[in-house]
Amino acid sequence: MLPGPTNVPERVMRAMMTHIINHRSDDFVELYTEVIEKTQQVFQTQSDVVALSSSGTGAVEASVVNLIKTGDKVIIPVNGEFSSRLSQMIEWQGANVVKLETPPGQNATFDQVKEAFDNNKDVKAFYVVHNETSTGTMVNYLDKIPDLISRNDAFYVVDSVSILGGIELPVDKWNVDVCMTGSQKALAAPPGISPISISPRAKKYMIENPPPTMYFNLARYFKYYEESKHTPFTPALPLLYAYREALRIILEEGLEARFKRHKICSDALYAGLSSIGFTPFAKEEDRSITIIALNYLEGLEDKTFRNTLAQKFRVLVAGGFGNLKGKVFRIGCMGEVNRYHVMRTISAISSTLAMMGYKTNTQEGLKIAEEKLEDL
Amino acid sequence: MLPGPTNVPERVMRAMMTHIINHRSDDFVELYTEVIEKTQQVFQTQSDVVALSSSGTGAVEASVVNLIKTGDKVIIPVNGEFSSRLSQMIEWQGANVVKLETPPGQNATFDQVKEAFDNNKDVKAFYVVHNETSTGTMVNYLDKIPDLISRNDAFYVVDSVSILGGIELPVDKWNVDVCMTGSQKALAAPPGISPISISPRAKKYMIENPPPTMYFNLARYFKYYEESKHTPFTPALPLLYAYREALRIILEEGLEARFKRHKICSDALYAGLSSIGFTPFAKEEDRSITIIALNYLEGLEDKTFRNTLAQKFRVLVAGGFGNLKGKVFRIGCMGEVNRYHVMRTISAISSTLAMMGYKTNTQEGLKIAEEKLEDL
Repeated sequence: MLPGPTNVPERVMRAMMTHIINHRSDDFVELYTEVIEKTQQVFQTQSDVVALSSSGTGAVEASVVNLIKTGDKVIIPVNGEFSSRLSQMIEWQGANVVKLETPPGQNATFDQVKEAFDNNKDVKAFYVVHNETSTGTMVNYLDKIPDLISRNDAFYVVDSVSILGGIELPVDKWNVDVCMTGSQKALAAPPGISPISISPRAKKYMIENPPPTMYFNLARYFKYYEESKHTPFTPALPLLYAYREALRIILEEGLEARFKRHKICSDALYAGLSSIGFTPFAKEEDRSITIIALNYLEGLEDKTFRNTLAQKFRVLVAGGFGNLKGKVFRIGCMGEVNRYHVMRTISAISSTLAMMGYKTNTQEGLKIAEEKLEDL
Repeated sequence: MLPGPTNVPERVMRAMMTHIINHRSDDFVELYTEVIEKTQQVFQTQSDVVALSSSGTGAVEASVVNLIKTGDKVIIPVNGEFSSRLSQMIEWQGANVVKLETPPGQNATFDQVKEAFDNNKDVKAFYVVHNETSTGTMVNYLDKIPDLISRNDAFYVVDSVSILGGIELPVDKWNVDVCMTGSQKALAAPPGISPISISPRAKKYMIENPPPTMYFNLARYFKYYEESKHTPFTPALPLLYAYREALRIILEEGLEARFKRHKICSDALYAGLSSIGFTPFAKEEDRSITIIALNYLEGLEDKTFRNTLAQKFRVLVAGGFGNLKGKVFRIGCMGEVNRYHVMRTISAISSTLAMMGYKTNTQEGLKIAEEKLEDL
């Protein structure tokens, strides 16, 4: 139940055993074109897609170095580790960054974003972290951004690393210019592949203004794909096979069903764990459905709690990030998450509390979760 | 018989099936510290090592962005695709690049390098591609560079992507400051992990002058390793397991035995294939032992030749790179290469020639290869 890397289905793991092929061969073209086409379906886009061999951070960095130049004005909401990192990368490009800072666990409101656009007519790009893994918040107004964007003609970039595939994000419909994710989150593949989509106008910009970098230079990927359906650098072949299998599973399940499953499991976890005494860290309207961050109960020690949970029940959850270390713990509700994961997690957490001398209401927590899960 | 990715032993492939772990856990520390320690043994270094989740190009780019700043003077021999790319990356940093250009298939001599050092007392770094994959050349005087370096106090950087693990390269003994390779070449692991070693003085420089980049920022890797033996970004876990297994196999065989095996197989391939009528592309004293580039016979068409070889005998070799397309083909002699690979390759190439109507001396080619292989 980690906030990534998440559980990987056996079918996906086994795909890695495919023998190593020549990455300059027809076998590779077959593999890679299927990867690209299925990624487009999951992203709901007809734009170009590149599957980078790197962690999600690599794709995020690619979205910055290929689009932002010295002096560009960029608006970005910042309220956690990953939005801070992204903002830092944009600053490194020499951009003029308009940060919409809010406390951790709380998002900038749509009105605040609108105001920022109104006050910065010369904005070059709007960057947003869809789902802040460090605090368990999620932005709910991504569909409304295009109206602001079109008024300003800015690029719209969504870092959806820890949620894409778990919630509605129709890239073309919402006019997202650049969108990226990581293979090891809601897509339920092993870590190491990071897909990124690029709209035609963003692509044009990137080809006309290639950055002075090599590995994340997207113009180079466009060129190789156009010429031969290859990648410019040797790709992580076993991970591409695994990622392709994960995409197949996603499309077999169907996006709608997958989004619904994520939502229901998340509702059940929030309700069940609230009922046994925890309070979510994030503000109610900003709560993520894939990362559930909960405040520790008074006196409940992070390491002891998580170690007991891991050693007695083999249920793995993550601690807090940075300043939140020891104050919150985080549950991943993504990828293959299902009713058994939810029930087992509530049960194990409740039992761990009992073992540590806390009085908990296990029966109530499980009952309310079970009710929520009925819709599955 | 590709010049990478190369054949991967079953044991290494199977290691990828290890279930996905938390990269912020003791399980990960156990995995990663073994990876680092065994990489140090293979590199013959006590310096810091980082295992990047990227192709070899990622590690090469890391060696540039962490060390080179605007205005720095850098000496680099250039005679092929990979040395050109490296030189390009150094130029992108705003460096003043002294290129020692020689024709493809021919290396700058040691005297030329020495002269460049004599003429550029203010040199900040010397970069060299150990083994040029595009043309099948290999630099033979890496052990003599430290004398020049110490006179100038410059950093010594060796891009050993397509050969490390196949030939002697004692990083500490030869005072190499930064050395990198790729997992999918002579180390015989799947592609996607790129180890890089950094000497104490290079490390100090990198920590004091961190570059404005994220994914390849080595200072960040040093910090995470020192604090917790973690990596800053989610690593490609299955590939790390595979790479660890590949390192174990290398150390079980022993470095000396492995280097000897590479040399003998390479000698046998050169001798056998010369005997059936091919001439090596590279100048004799500069010929690589892991990449054997051969000139096509008059009228021998690249695609037909390689397709026949692949479809009739399942022996895969690579074509030429860039300008050399259609003029040469390249055989990888690395990783798991053994006597059967050598004999089968000569046999299949000879048979392909026969099928295409060429007169070849198969008997002679196999006999001379067999003699060379006796030393194995």
